[in-house]
Amino acid sequence: MTKTNELPIGMFDSGVGGLTVLKALRKRCPSEDVIYLGDTARLPYGTKSSLTVSRYAVQCAAELVGRGIKLLVVACNTASAVALTALREAYPDIPVIGVVEPGARAACHATHNHAIAIIGTESTIAGGAYQRAIHSIDAQARVVGHPCPLFVALAEEGWTDGEVPEAVAARYLDPVFNPAPGTESPTVPDTLVLGCTHFPLLAPAIRNVVKAETTIVDSAATTAETVNDELTRRGIKRADSVFGTINYLTTDDVVRFARTGTRFLGTAIGEGEVDLVDI
Amino acid sequence: MTKTNELPIGMFDSGVGGLTVLKALRKRCPSEDVIYLGDTARLPYGTKSSLTVSRYAVQCAAELVGRGIKLLVVACNTASAVALTALREAYPDIPVIGVVEPGARAACHATHNHAIAIIGTESTIAGGAYQRAIHSIDAQARVVGHPCPLFVALAEEGWTDGEVPEAVAARYLDPVFNPAPGTESPTVPDTLVLGCTHFPLLAPAIRNVVKAETTIVDSAATTAETVNDELTRRGIKRADSVFGTINYLTTDDVVRFARTGTRFLGTAIGEGEVDLVDI
Repeated sequence: MTKTNELPIGMFDSGVGGLTVLKALRKRCPSEDVIYLGDTARLPYGTKSSLTVSRYAVQCAAELVGRGIKLLVVACNTASAVALTALREAYPDIPVIGVVEPGARAACHATHNHAIAIIGTESTIAGGAYQRAIHSIDAQARVVGHPCPLFVALAEEGWTDGEVPEAVAARYLDPVFNPAPGTESPTVPDTLVLGCTHFPLLAPAIRNVVKAETTIVDSAATTAETVNDELTRRGIKRADSVFGTINYLTTDDVVRFARTGTRFLGTAIGEGEVDLVDI
Repeated sequence: MTKTNELPIGMFDSGVGGLTVLKALRKRCPSEDVIYLGDTARLPYGTKSSLTVSRYAVQCAAELVGRGIKLLVVACNTASAVALTALREAYPDIPVIGVVEPGARAACHATHNHAIAIIGTESTIAGGAYQRAIHSIDAQARVVGHPCPLFVALAEEGWTDGEVPEAVAARYLDPVFNPAPGTESPTVPDTLVLGCTHFPLLAPAIRNVVKAETTIVDSAATTAETVNDELTRRGIKRADSVFGTINYLTTDDVVRFARTGTRFLGTAIGEGEVDLVDI
């Protein structure tokens, strides 16, 4: 029987966005093997109901658990926001880490004026999971949630700079960060959480709209840190002397996964490295 | 047993986009009952593989056929492009009408210079169904296909006018319709097919980019005409003296369907008119 510390980490997302989390984990824990599942046949999760997303999340987890994993990372904000409880109930023996709580923690650490803005998909924002996670750490914080679904489409299309993403960012974020003079405006947030794994690709366009002193929190790095802490705490970290491998699984077109995934991971994914699975 | 002409027409789409086709059918055949199924839990179809889309299409059809229908309209370009054969094999007794062939016919009728541009989702364009349908009518036609996936996100978000859609339309369409002086450019198309049911909502922004004399073909009206012809030919039209009802089915959030659907249909859909189904 394989020793627990030799087992891979399982990670899933609705598509390729979670590869920004994989990239951060790879940097923090390079010796760990990872199986990454992108449920591209059913993306996006962000416009679907909580019940549907929970059902999909449990199915993704089942595929990974069936392959033998020591820890599960939900590298999808929408699923982290609505499905963690269902996943922990379904797999009580496997630690489950989402991206919401680490992102919320990083935001509370960064803010000075206790005004935090969160941007994400419609369902992440409407579900209020970030808002709750932040308030459980900083009860005084004023949290503004703002859905930005077009950022997902822009990142997928690879339109991450130029006129279009800047116009989209301005239309979404100006009301929060640059209220028109004379309008009654509450404290402008000094911290912005990118509450969707697609959004780090749009960070330059977003930076153009928010003030220079605004901290932009990308939960990928904080989530990788949390995974490392949890592995250490449980004594199931893999020896540092090895270099981990990555296996990619997708529920739809392998070629498209490799192509768009490369953009999110920042290094090339070969079509031969991706397996099609039916879940 | 219900007489065939009294049965409803079944219509499905991956979401609410097909409601632009329903709107046209409602205008052409107001006495017909229609059951409209929006498979919102699994949208979008446009980025998924042909195999996955065919499987989804047959499942949608099964749900409608099970309720008793006299004709099936595939009000989704992606599914029309890849799944018509599978649907006709699965249901040989029910006439199946897609949106591609009517759109291609209208384009061939409109063009004078035999240069036609098609815009649609990635899979509609890559699949080449419009290109084949046009060439089977006009073998001399020069057809340019151009995927415009962001138009879908813009229509869903309701950003159909102003700076953002105009910038997106220019980025997609300028290379085809306004080639830079000095670049070697073939004949500019005089006809543009909106090969996605979402795109009629963006028609004003698209019109700003193409020349005033360009014909914009929206396949909804032509598809409605084709449905009317088929019902007449088979003698299964409903009597003109009645006014048909519409039943809406969705595979995900009813509230969201009613809200975004209203934008596409052009008249209000009440939440109470929409039923959730699990297919």
